[in-house]
Amino acid sequence: MTDASTEEVPVRPLNPSRVEAFSDGVMAIAITLLVIDIRLPESQDDLLKQLLGLWPSYLAYLGSFATIGVIWLSHHAFFARIRQVNGLLQVGNLLVLLCVAFLPFPTTVLAHHLEDGGRNAGVATAFYFLTAAVQAGAWIVMWTAVRRDPALLRPGYSADVARVETRQAVIGFVALAAVGVIGLVVPIVALVLYLVAVVGYALPVMAWPRRVRGRAA
Amino acid sequence: MTDASTEEVPVRPLNPSRVEAFSDGVMAIAITLLVIDIRLPESQDDLLKQLLGLWPSYLAYLGSFATIGVIWLSHHAFFARIRQVNGLLQVGNLLVLLCVAFLPFPTTVLAHHLEDGGRNAGVATAFYFLTAAVQAGAWIVMWTAVRRDPALLRPGYSADVARVETRQAVIGFVALAAVGVIGLVVPIVALVLYLVAVVGYALPVMAWPRRVRGRAA
Amino acid sequence: MTDASTEEVPVRPLNPSRVEAFSDGVMAIAITLLVIDIRLPESQDDLLKQLLGLWPSYLAYLGSFATIGVIWLSHHAFFARIRQVNGLLQVGNLLVLLCVAFLPFPTTVLAHHLEDGGRNAGVATAFYFLTAAVQAGAWIVMWTAVRRDPALLRPGYSADVARVETRQAVIGFVALAAVGVIGLVVPIVALVLYLVAVVGYALPVMAWPRRVRGRAA
Amino acid sequence: MTDASTEEVPVRPLNPSRVEAFSDGVMAIAITLLVIDIRLPESQDDLLKQLLGLWPSYLAYLGSFATIGVIWLSHHAFFARIRQVNGLLQVGNLLVLLCVAFLPFPTTVLAHHLEDGGRNAGVATAFYFLTAAVQAGAWIVMWTAVRRDPALLRPGYSADVARVETRQAVIGFVALAAVGVIGLVVPIVALVLYLVAVVGYALPVMAWPRRVRGRAA
Repeated sequence: MTDASTEEVPVRPLNPSRVEAFSDGVMAIAITLLVIDIRLPESQDDLLKQLLGLWPSYLAYLGSFATIGVIWLSHHAFFARIRQVNGLLQVGNLLVLLCVAFLPFPTTVLAHHLEDGGRNAGVATAFYFLTAAVQAGAWIVMWTAVRRDPALLRPGYSADVARVETRQAVIGFVALAAVGVIGLVVPIVALVLYLVAVVGYALPVMAWPRRVRGRAA
Repeated sequence: MTDASTEEVPVRPLNPSRVEAFSDGVMAIAITLLVIDIRLPESQDDLLKQLLGLWPSYLAYLGSFATIGVIWLSHHAFFARIRQVNGLLQVGNLLVLLCVAFLPFPTTVLAHHLEDGGRNAGVATAFYFLTAAVQAGAWIVMWTAVRRDPALLRPGYSADVARVETRQAVIGFVALAAVGVIGLVVPIVALVLYLVAVVGYALPVMAWPRRVRGRAA
Repeated sequence: MTDASTEEVPVRPLNPSRVEAFSDGVMAIAITLLVIDIRLPESQDDLLKQLLGLWPSYLAYLGSFATIGVIWLSHHAFFARIRQVNGLLQVGNLLVLLCVAFLPFPTTVLAHHLEDGGRNAGVATAFYFLTAAVQAGAWIVMWTAVRRDPALLRPGYSADVARVETRQAVIGFVALAAVGVIGLVVPIVALVLYLVAVVGYALPVMAWPRRVRGRAA
Repeated sequence: MTDASTEEVPVRPLNPSRVEAFSDGVMAIAITLLVIDIRLPESQDDLLKQLLGLWPSYLAYLGSFATIGVIWLSHHAFFARIRQVNGLLQVGNLLVLLCVAFLPFPTTVLAHHLEDGGRNAGVATAFYFLTAAVQAGAWIVMWTAVRRDPALLRPGYSADVARVETRQAVIGFVALAAVGVIGLVVPIVALVLYLVAVVGYALPVMAWPRRVRGRAA
């Protein structure tokens, strides 16, 4: 789409508000679509028994709602510090959204196979955390875009924040990949570890926005 | 995600506009998804007869549209008085959205089992109002966040509004739980009571925004 | 939700931007969901033959996309003249959205029964235009809200615009109801009439926004 | 909707922000709906084998996510240069959205028939690129609207940008139509060509927004 015959001139900085709006849309839809795959089985059972029998679906719904909720909170906190976007940031953001929009599928797979015998429960758990890990990897791309061009940050934030957050994103990626490997063998241990991690992430958010790191005084 | 090695400094107050946008997205999708589960049965009947036979689905669609509509109006009225958000408010809001996004499932269950014999109609009704009651409970969390930190309110609103609204939210929670218990035994009574309550809520809204309580003159 | 013990004071005028955002969400979802019910039949036929055999679905998709597209253009033109909303306007707007969100169902019914023998094609057509007529009726509510309180209009617009538009909405309602009655007997005539009307509405929009009625010079 | 009895006066220029919001909604939903049709087959196979067997669905998901992602980036870049909209631009934009919202259907068709024998794989590929080509054609409408009325551009952009971009849109339309014809005969060649084109489009975006053509210095 470049045209050598046209003189190229600097473009006005792109405002992140439209990126936020599009991302909010994708995350809002993905978080809402999770319920579509909760369906009553074709059964002659008492309704109460049917509803109670869907507990793995409720658990998967809660878990994925929490996952996307935490991603949205991180996205909100990310763009609260950004004043303009560039191409690499756009690509990283689209990669986050690719994973978020995909999440309803591994969620359904996990809900339907968590009670399976054999290695199916492990495969379903690993598939779920593989998606989550790729998503965490996309945050490395986003923070790398900021690290390379600190002018993307709002006044008052230094390049240090990008370095610290990039490291955090790498840790998150490695941790989720590790949880996936553990889940392949002992699914229940992986799910409990993940639950602890999500609560451990959410608790400081509850005290939000008292303090945030990386901002110059 | 805290990092002891980094000096922590106050963050700029978080603007609620993105919380509104994300919430609008989730509520818009949930209210629209309600129609997905209205489907013609596989049948050789005359089409008119099939369409008329779907009346419980139309009723459930109308009822859940009214429910989410009223929640959206409350959400709109809530954030019209808020100028910044904190972590507890975010968590309360996500809990509201968790229930709203889940609502299409109990709606479908109610539509398909309202005409069932035995205790199924009661179970479906109670399941619906259980979801509605948890949603009402999330408003207690949201108003508690405001009550604890009145600086979240826009200028001109006092902490009194948070106290009054918290009490209202508790009443709403108890009322919906009670309707659920009634619905377990006599579903039709619960549904009529609920209809009256929604209309009773919507009527003053029709006169909106002439007056609202809790604002200093 | 009123509380007699609290002194009631005037509320700050409600900004319509959030109403627009929520409405945009519902209309965007409804217009996108239309495609979900286009599905290949379980068949051994050649794929090309299957794809061509879905022509009623493509027609219904195009027609409903045009319908919601025209509603969105009207909604855009409506709120371009509004500077604040009141309760009756909110209720009218929710009624428009109720019909828009419902539209995917009559669209699917029409697509699946347009080729039926007997009176089914007529019933499906009438059902579709019944939904469209109720939607047109909701615009009477919205313009009535403006007619009763011209202060809702932006500066430069007079109450005349509300009177003219209310009359237009009544004509639209009657016309769509009439098309529905015609469709019950001769579906194809109703659909052609409707197509002409939509094109007749869209053509002046193409010249938009050169001139609009009801604005003081 | 014109009324000869009312004096017509110039309307205030329409702000493109609501067009962006509605378009973001449609694109966000279409990009998220792509996952709905990824479903595990009813099968007794090992879960891992089932998940791996869905590779055409993953490929189609990735491809259509990239397609809509690129359309969104173009849309973003288009409206970054626009300060008001007119009717022809609205119609062109709705035509883009018509194709984007339809894309999940040809995506599913492609995913399910890519491995078919006979001419089915070719038909599915051509159907996909036919949709993409019509979408590219809609951009010709949009840029033509700008070319005819350069006042739609923000200050600093000249009519030259519209001429260059119209030519680009024509090239894109012809290229996608050609890929569709090739795909009818040799699907795999068409898909590889398309992949190269998307990557070739995305790479300069990565360097975005350093320079953009058509802006006066």
